[in-house]
Parts: sequence; C-alpha cells; structure tokens
Amino acid sequence: MAGNRPPDRGREPEEPRVDPLLEVREKRRGQRPGDSYVRIVRPFEDEFEREEGRLVATERTVLERSGWTRTLRGIRTFLIGRPISSDHEQHERLTKVKALAIFSSDNISSSAYGPEEILRVLALAGAGALTLTLPIAGLIIGMLAIVTMSYRQTIKAYPLGASSYIVASDNLGDRAGVLAASALLIGYVVTVAVSVSAGVAAMTSILPGLYDYRVYVSVAMVVLLTLGNLRGIRESGSIFMAPTYLYIVTMLGIIGYALVRNVLGDLPPYTPPQEWALSEGTQVLGLFLLLRAFSQGAVALTGVEAISDGVPAFKAPEWRNARTTLTWATAIFGILFLGIAYLITTLGFVPDPTEQQTVLSLLVRHVTGNGAILILAQVATALLLVLAANTSFADFPRLSSFLARDGFMPRQFAFRGERLAFTTGIVALAGLAILLLVSFRASVTGLIPLYTLGVFIAFTLSQAGMLQRWWRRHEAGWRQGMVINGLGAATTAVVALVVGTSNFFQGSWMVMVLVPALMALLMGIRAHYRRMEHQLHPTPDADDDKEPDPIVIVPLARLDRPARRALAFARTISPHATAVHITNDPHTAEQLREAWGSLAGPMELVVVESPYRALVGPLLRYMDALQSLHPSRPIVVVLAEVVPRHWWENLLHNQTSLRLKLRLFGRKNTIVADVPFHLDD
Amino acid sequence: MAGNRPPDRGREPEEPRVDPLLEVREKRRGQRPGDSYVRIVRPFEDEFEREEGRLVATERTVLERSGWTRTLRGIRTFLIGRPISSDHEQHERLTKVKALAIFSSDNISSSAYGPEEILRVLALAGAGALTLTLPIAGLIIGMLAIVTMSYRQTIKAYPLGASSYIVASDNLGDRAGVLAASALLIGYVVTVAVSVSAGVAAMTSILPGLYDYRVYVSVAMVVLLTLGNLRGIRESGSIFMAPTYLYIVTMLGIIGYALVRNVLGDLPPYTPPQEWALSEGTQVLGLFLLLRAFSQGAVALTGVEAISDGVPAFKAPEWRNARTTLTWATAIFGILFLGIAYLITTLGFVPDPTEQQTVLSLLVRHVTGNGAILILAQVATALLLVLAANTSFADFPRLSSFLARDGFMPRQFAFRGERLAFTTGIVALAGLAILLLVSFRASVTGLIPLYTLGVFIAFTLSQAGMLQRWWRRHEAGWRQGMVINGLGAATTAVVALVVGTSNFFQGSWMVMVLVPALMALLMGIRAHYRRMEHQLHPTPDADDDKEPDPIVIVPLARLDRPARRALAFARTISPHATAVHITNDPHTAEQLREAWGSLAGPMELVVVESPYRALVGPLLRYMDALQSLHPSRPIVVVLAEVVPRHWWENLLHNQTSLRLKLRLFGRKNTIVADVPFHLDD
Repeated sequence: MAGNRPPDRGREPEEPRVDPLLEVREKRRGQRPGDSYVRIVRPFEDEFEREEGRLVATERTVLERSGWTRTLRGIRTFLIGRPISSDHEQHERLTKVKALAIFSSDNISSSAYGPEEILRVLALAGAGALTLTLPIAGLIIGMLAIVTMSYRQTIKAYPLGASSYIVASDNLGDRAGVLAASALLIGYVVTVAVSVSAGVAAMTSILPGLYDYRVYVSVAMVVLLTLGNLRGIRESGSIFMAPTYLYIVTMLGIIGYALVRNVLGDLPPYTPPQEWALSEGTQVLGLFLLLRAFSQGAVALTGVEAISDGVPAFKAPEWRNARTTLTWATAIFGILFLGIAYLITTLGFVPDPTEQQTVLSLLVRHVTGNGAILILAQVATALLLVLAANTSFADFPRLSSFLARDGFMPRQFAFRGERLAFTTGIVALAGLAILLLVSFRASVTGLIPLYTLGVFIAFTLSQAGMLQRWWRRHEAGWRQGMVINGLGAATTAVVALVVGTSNFFQGSWMVMVLVPALMALLMGIRAHYRRMEHQLHPTPDADDDKEPDPIVIVPLARLDRPARRALAFARTISPHATAVHITNDPHTAEQLREAWGSLAGPMELVVVESPYRALVGPLLRYMDALQSLHPSRPIVVVLAEVVPRHWWENLLHNQTSLRLKLRLFGRKNTIVADVPFHLDD
Repeated sequence: MAGNRPPDRGREPEEPRVDPLLEVREKRRGQRPGDSYVRIVRPFEDEFEREEGRLVATERTVLERSGWTRTLRGIRTFLIGRPISSDHEQHERLTKVKALAIFSSDNISSSAYGPEEILRVLALAGAGALTLTLPIAGLIIGMLAIVTMSYRQTIKAYPLGASSYIVASDNLGDRAGVLAASALLIGYVVTVAVSVSAGVAAMTSILPGLYDYRVYVSVAMVVLLTLGNLRGIRESGSIFMAPTYLYIVTMLGIIGYALVRNVLGDLPPYTPPQEWALSEGTQVLGLFLLLRAFSQGAVALTGVEAISDGVPAFKAPEWRNARTTLTWATAIFGILFLGIAYLITTLGFVPDPTEQQTVLSLLVRHVTGNGAILILAQVATALLLVLAANTSFADFPRLSSFLARDGFMPRQFAFRGERLAFTTGIVALAGLAILLLVSFRASVTGLIPLYTLGVFIAFTLSQAGMLQRWWRRHEAGWRQGMVINGLGAATTAVVALVVGTSNFFQGSWMVMVLVPALMALLMGIRAHYRRMEHQLHPTPDADDDKEPDPIVIVPLARLDRPARRALAFARTISPHATAVHITNDPHTAEQLREAWGSLAGPMELVVVESPYRALVGPLLRYMDALQSLHPSRPIVVVLAEVVPRHWWENLLHNQTSLRLKLRLFGRKNTIVADVPFHLDD
C-alpha cells in the first residue's frame, strides 16, 4: 500500500474511502500483484451499531480486551457493576410514603443525637442546668415550624427543585447563589461525617469493643456508601424505606411506653455511674452557654433542604405532595425530639463523658432493659444514620453537577460515569468526609459546630431569595408570602448568627474561613472558563484554518530503530525535516555524523554539543533560533519513544523524554508527535 | 510564507536552508511583495558557539528565561550553584597526607563508637563481663591487620580502582560482582545512617537538650550533606582534612595523657550513676554473646574499602601511595581503638542505657573534666563522623554509575548533573539513609547489626576474587599472594558468618533479605536492557525507514479554535484526515454535523454515539476497525489541547485527553500529535 517514496512526492489520492463501520461492502484486495479476490468486510459489527449516518458504540467498546486495563476493568465490574447505557436513566416518581422515608432520613435521624448535644453543653454548667434541655428543645421545634412553613412556599414556587443554590441564584444573583452553594457543599460533607459518626456511636453503645476502632469503622462505612453510590443505588430503592420507618415506629413505641410508665410513677429516675457525676460545673450558666446549647441542638433543622431539593422526584402534583411530606416529616421529628428531650430531662440523664455510649441508648436501656428492644433500637438508629449520610451522597454530586454545568466547578463534576452516577462528585465527597472523620476522630460533639452554620447560611439565602421574588412579582398572596418567608429568613439568620458566634472557637471559625474560600474558588473557576470560552470561540479573523508548512525537527540520541521510525514519520510530514543530536560526548557525535549519510538518507543532521550536559535547555534555545527565522510556522517535534511491555518498566525509560514533553507543552506554536516503538519483551 | 493551499498539493521546495546558528549571512526577505532589504542575521550568538560543523551550547541555554521554571532555577542556583561545564571536571591527585584524611575518615571514625558497641553487648551479661572488651578489641585489630595485608595486594593489582564490585566481577563473574555491589550499596546507605547517628550522639553528649530532636538533627545533617554533594564539593577539598587530623591528635593526646595518669595511679576508677548500675545481667555470658560483641565491634573493619576504591585519585605511583596510606590508617586506627578499649575496661566504664551520652564522651570527661578539651573532643568526633558519612556520598553514586554504565541500574545513575555530580545516586542515597534514620530513631546500637554484614560479604568476594586471579595468572609471588588473600578471604568470610548469625534477629536478617532482592533487581534490569538493545538495533530486514502513508484522525468534542488548528495540522499530514466526534448527546452531534460543511472544509466527519458515555473505549475500537483495513499503516491521532497559562489550571482541562494519551501510548503503530492552543488569560 505504501512504499519508500522520494521525500518530495505529491500525495496520491487513496482508494475511495468507505467507512468500514458504516457499510457492508465488497472489497477487492491484492495481497500480491495479480492476486485478487472478493471478500465481504463487516468487521466490528458487535462493537458498533449503524444508524443513519452515524455509529452507536455498544457495551463491548467499553470492555477491555487484554492486559492490566482488563484486570482493572474486572475489579471495577466486581465493585460497581457493568456500565449502564444512558437510555436506562431512571425517572421513577415517589409516593409520599417512600419520599418521607428517603428524603427525611437526614431530618428525623438528628433526633438521635440532637437532644444529647444540648445536654452536653448544659452539663458544662453542672447538674442543675440540665433541666433546661426541654425548654431549649421546645424553642428549636418552634423555629422548625416557622422554617417548615417558609419552605412550603419555596417548594410551591420551585417545583423543578428548590435547592438554595437555585433559589438564591434566581432571585439574588450569582454571588448569593454561589455563597449558598459553598455553604451547602461544606454542609453536605459535614453531614456525612456527623451521620456516620453518630451511626457508629449507636453501634458502640451496644458493642463497646468497637469503640477503639470507631475511626476505621467510620471510614469503612463511607467507603461502602461510596461504592454503593458509584454502583448507582438509586434513592428510590425500596430497601431504603425500612430503616426510617423502623426507627420511627421503634422510637415512638419506646417513648410512648416510657411516658405511660412515667405517668404511672413506675419509672425510677436514672442513676449515672459514679465517675460520670457532675461537679459544680466548669462554666457559669450564662446567656452564652444557653446559646451554645441551642446551637448544638439546631442540627435538628438541617434536614429541611433535602425534601426541597427533591421536589421533581415526587408524583404529580409534585409541589403539593412534597410540601405535605415536609409537614409530616416535621411533625414526626418534633414528637420524637421533644419526647426524647422530655424523658432525659425528667429522668435526670447525664452524658457519658467518654462518648462511648449515646444518651439515647442509655435511655432505651433504662426503659426497656438490656434485651432485644435495646438492640433493635440501636440497629434502627445506626441504619437510619447511615441512610442520612446517603442523602448527602445524592445531594452533593447533584449540586456539584449544577455548579459544573454553570461553569463554577470543573467539568468532570457534570459527567455521568459508567453507572450514570456523578462519579467525580461522589469520590470528592467521600474523600473530604474521610478527611473530616479522621481529623475529628469520628466525634459527633466535635463535628457538630462545623455542621449547622453552613446549612443556616444557605437557608437564610434561600428564604431571602423568596422574599425578593414575592416583592418583584407581586403574585397572588404576595403579602402573606412575604410575611412567612420573611419570618423564616429572619429566624434562620438569627440562628446562623447565634451558631456562628457561640461556636466560634469550637469550630464555626473553620466554616467562616472555608465558605468564603470555596466561594472565591468557584467564582475564580467560572471566570477562568469564561475567559477561555471567549478565546476558544472561532472569530472571523482567526487564521486557525491556515496550514503553514510546519518546521519539523527530530531530536535523537542515536540511530536505533525507534529513531529511524521517527525520522521516517518526520519525512512524511515535511521533506525538510531536520535531525538534532544534542550530546555532551563529542566522540559519539562524530560517530553519528559518520554513520549518518549511509543510514539516515538525505536528511540534515545538526549536532549541538552541550558541555553543561543539559538536553532540554539547548533544544528549546535551538527551536527559538529556528522560530526567529519563521515566526509564523509551527515547529513539530517528532519524538521517538520506547514503549515497554509493562508499565513499571517505564522507570527505566523515557525520563528525559517526559521532562522534554512537559516543557514543550508550555511552548507556543509547538506540536509534539510521539512515535512509539513497542518492545516485545 | 505559507498560505491556505488545497489539501492535495505537492510540496514546494523551501528557500535554501542555511542553519541560522552556524552561519553569519545576508538574507533577503520580503515582508510585502516588492519590499525587500538586506539584513545581517546572527541571532543567538550568546546561546551557541560555532565550531566546525557543530554548535556548542553555552551556559545561557541552560538558564531559564521566564515563568515558574525560572523560579525553580533560582532556588536551584541558590542551593547548589550554577551549572558547571564538563571541561571543568577535576582530576586533582591527592598526597598521602590528604588521602589519609579523606579516605580513612570512615575507618578512623569507627573508633568513636566501636568499643562502646562491644561494651553494650557485654553489659547484657552483667558488670563482670565488661573486662572482655579489651581481648575482643585485640582480636578485631588482629583481623584488621590481616585484611589490610590482603587489601594491599588488591590495591597493587587494581590501580584503576579496587572496588569489590570490580574485583569480584573481573575474577568471579557478573553474579559475584553484582552480589558484592548489592552488599556494598546497602552498606553505604547504612554507613550514612550510622555515622550521622553517631555524630549526633557525640553532640547530644555535651548538649543533652538536643537528644529529643536527634532524628530531626540527623535528617538535617543528611540534607546538608546532600546539598553539599549536589553542589559538587570534591573529596579533595582541603577543608575536609581538618576534622580527621583534629580527631587523631586530640584523641591520641587524651589517650596518652590518660595512660600516663593511669600508670602513675593518678586516675581513679569510674563510678557510674546509680541508675546505670548493672545487675546480675539478663543474659548468660556464652559463646553467642561473645560473638555478638565481636560482631558489633567488627564495624572497625568496614572502612578499608574506601581507600581501595580511591586508588586512581592518589599521586603516582598510585598503588604504592595508596597501600602505604592504608597501612598508616590501619595503624592509627588500631592505636586509637585499643587505647580506648583498654581505658574503658581498666577504669570500669558502663554504657548509658538511654544512649544519651557516648562512652567516649564519658571517658574524655572523666580524664579531662568538663572543660574545653571535652568540647574540642566532641566537636572533632562529630565532624569526623559527618565526614565519614560523606565518604559514602562519594562511593555510592560512583558505584551506582559503574552499575548503570554496565546496565545493571537505570541509566540516570550514570548521568552527571549540572554540577558534574551523579545527582540521581546522591538523591537516592539520601532518601534511603533518611528512611533508615527515621525508622531506627537514629540509634547507633540499633543500626550497627545492619551495617557489618553487607560490607563483609563484599570483602569476602573481593578477596576471593584476588585468590582466583593469582591462581589463574600465576604471576610472580602468586603463592605468597594466595596465602595472604586466602587468609583475608577466610577471615572476612568467618566474620560475615559470625555477624550474620549472631545478629540475625537484631537486624542482619534484613540484610539477608535485601541483598538478594537488590541483586535480583539489578540482574533483572540488565536483562531488560539487553533484551531492549537487541530489539532496538537496526537489522537489515527491518522496515523502519519506510514511510507508509499514515491514517490521520482528529477526535474532537466541538468545532472551537483548538479543534480547527488540529484539523489544519492534520490536513498538512494527510489529505484524507478524518474528524471523529464521540458523544453521548445526539443533539450536539446533529448541530456539529450541520455546522461541519461550512466551517471545517472538505474533511470527513464520523459521528460515534456513545450511550455508555465512554470516550476512550469507542475511539480505540474505531481505530481497530480502521487498522483492520490497513494493517501496515500507522494511525496518527491529532489531539487539540488547551494550554492554560498557569500549571494548576490544568486541573480544569485536559483530564480526558490525558487519559486518552495514556492509553494511546500503549497502542501499537499509533502516533500521537499534540496540537496546543495557548490561552492568553
């Protein structure tokens, strides 16, 4: 088909090209002169299907056929399954019963640790302060009611998804939107860490031996969640319904039973172990401590966003079903939260200072004993908390994909992976959550101060956005709407302020540093992409379609087979290609020069001696010199590369060529062509 | 110069090429038609000097001109200085006085810790066993005398450098040579760790506050040595003479003074602190413990190799001067070692169990008090020990370069860096030594068991090689030579055996694992290089010089400016280049197809839909299909790449293209051409 032609040849037209993948055809082929036969060519019909004018790749194109990539693929398939076609994207709609289980797990699960966190702060002021747990819990539930009413309006206004990012962007502009998004992204990471830590704490309460390994167990949980989500476990899986309702039923039962026994005077007060006994208290019970206790408990409100995010997943009428579900979730949560707070206050519980047992587990044990019900309650709690973490695994990647679509995050975040999940977002979330879990040794109390602030910033922005929307649109009921959303915005703003200041040294300073930093990063990324888009857009006066003759050079160390192939390829690009030999050894240069005429054909050889033994520098300067004569012509650097059979053998090759490529990549008007020479081994 | 030509054009001959760097010339240049002028072109005369038929790069070609590479260059110049030309390679010859100072520092410095290490083992058997220190030291010096005699012959036989690797390879074959080399390489790494640890121990003996930071201080020392050696401090620097002679004079003086006072009955016995008091001893004083004590002391012999390695650096007659120096070094070391061993035995010293103070420092303090002489002695000791570590910084990279030259190690080890030092070897040695120092918390006692075995394996092989040489050559005096080298080989073999077995669990097992592993690695590397050389060698029937018309494809995501440049370049290579659009979005594919005719010119566009959202797999399969029609033609993949201004912005670009290139690198007969598009930002 192609022989050794003179370098200055004209191009012959090839045989008429018919794409081998598009056409079944007859082909006449001569292996030797005169030897011709007819053959039906239809290769790769398993790999590609033909549709009018285009090819559709089948799953086989994704599967690997040999070598280490195949091994990797095998591991991947074992862990997350086979690739899924875009055609199979699911659009299942949720009933209210399912949606309550799936979206409100974050919300309801905070009843497992919320009251305890209030108690822990109050304990700092001594045993007497503990009775304030119930009033604080009541205040929190009151605020939750306000926020719920406010979000009911948001849901109606944004039936396509009422993420704070969308509501704030839409009404208050990009900056507000990105601020809300930054706060939420951080909030999601902390949600995973908090929920997993609390889930593990529920387990260690009945399996004390696990306590020393809590960080490992937590990390393992995150890894499992990650694999599950990469595999694409849909939020709609019915399997996720069980933990929520199991928890609700079990806890309502236990609380009811305890209340009845309490009314009957059958339930004795709790006697903490001697070594937990609270002394006078290390801090004065002032306003500040009360605010901190309130802040710790305010985690209860953080779950509201999940239902608003998920409005489009409800059955029609979406917004009506979603807000009914929200109301129900708030009601159930309120009963659980207040019930637990009432019982631990009345019965005189104190927190375990070593964090080995949760107060909830102490309560259940006190009411029901060490039996099956305790185990059931703890298992339900642990499962629910893991499910709550899973909510973030749905929300974080989705929000990231919105941000990537709008140019605020790298584009990878918007790509669906082989299983249709947002792979990059899932992996990023998991990595960050593991970092948090390890840094905070999986301590719920340590993590909570990082949790609440971000979420409340987002809440405030979302509701302020609604306020602006009512004001601008003057739709029916706008006065009433403004009152409700205004009250919601004011409430959450106050909570944000309280959380931010009272927990400042406990950790909210980190959020105050991270949220603006992340925001700046997101804005910076979009600015970069915009500048880039501007430059990449074809303009009428751009000369991108011109084809100036390239200057072709071939750096070579010696005349081995890879070098000869590189030279041959260089000649196909340009009849004036030049070989460049940079060396610190005049002797080998002389040998090369002598061998040149007979071996390399009619090509020019430039010898550059490099007494400083550097290769890259002199080559770049030589290219500068060539370029100075022909400023408009691109320089093509043809590199011969030895490709070993095994990747680790690359340590023995190509070190110089890698450094060279890195530098050439940064040089303008420079095209690098890699001509590989594969070793058989 | 180049316009938009039809794709099927023939190549025009360019203007006659005269290399702009080789010739001062007059050039006629037309900017617009009819507008011509004469100009002297001699650019880059500062970068390149012209010599007959070739260019010589000046230092300016190595210096960076802008951006982060310039910053890196600045840091580099600050740390290790400006590049040095190969012309300046030093060939200074050493007098015996200088050579003694430089080459025997390793040897003589072991008198600072050798006696103590014997004492420490004996102390395990209780206070009574300590008196055996002197006889063991005597035995060691006796063996040193034998080895010295043996090496005097080796030096005469190998005046070009008597490294065990060379002697063993030359006489016993490659395997023996590589075994010796592996043992030596490991020995050099341990030498650095031991010497630096001992030097830091000498410092902490007078500055106890430093003890807690000994690992950091040790690592800092290694880093300093590394920088010094990268900078190219030559072994010959006179500055290195001072510590050796300072140590010899100070220690000889102190020992002499102590001996005189001892004879006069003026020196009281040593009273150790209460808490150091030795109980009955935890182990029985059996043969095994005696052998271990001997092994620990045998470090004394490890320095012999350095002088043998360095024979060519002596003034003529090299071998005679070298062996005289070796004899002197042995004699001085013998006196110091025996003197110190005698004194600590007679005066009843016991080792500090916490390793905070060296026995030598206790001795000096006991003899001379807490004054200036103590400080002088400790400073001299510390400096000498660091100098001893520096010996390895000369030997390890040199041995590595020999091994790399012979194909046993990656070629980088044979390249001289910008300062003429073997950069790769120096950095590798430093990294490994730091790893050891950190793992062993800079404990001399912990490191010694790793030290001796490797060196003695190399000794044995070297002397066995000499035995073989005498036998084969029957040169004058061969009988006597065989007796001496045989005695040497037998002695060192016995020591290797004793060290290996008695210290097995203390650490020599590691050497027994690492030496064969390293040996296997080195042999494997050479086998790889040989197979490769075989394949790279041009053969008459290889068709590397043929230039089959390449198949050119341009994968593209959209028709932006980078893509258009890539298409333009593809057209310069082949008139039949094809664009391939792989997408998971049929809608954008349709848009691209509609825009194609008007924007991209007469080029074919193939659309591949990828419902599994994969890019790499379908493209590779498509290339397979093309290849199946034209098995002999290479496929050129032209990739458009956006190059941002700042390297970190690459995180926002080219992720897919990077993965694609990685996979294409592994595909046979595939040439990848990168067409960059530089963003201005």
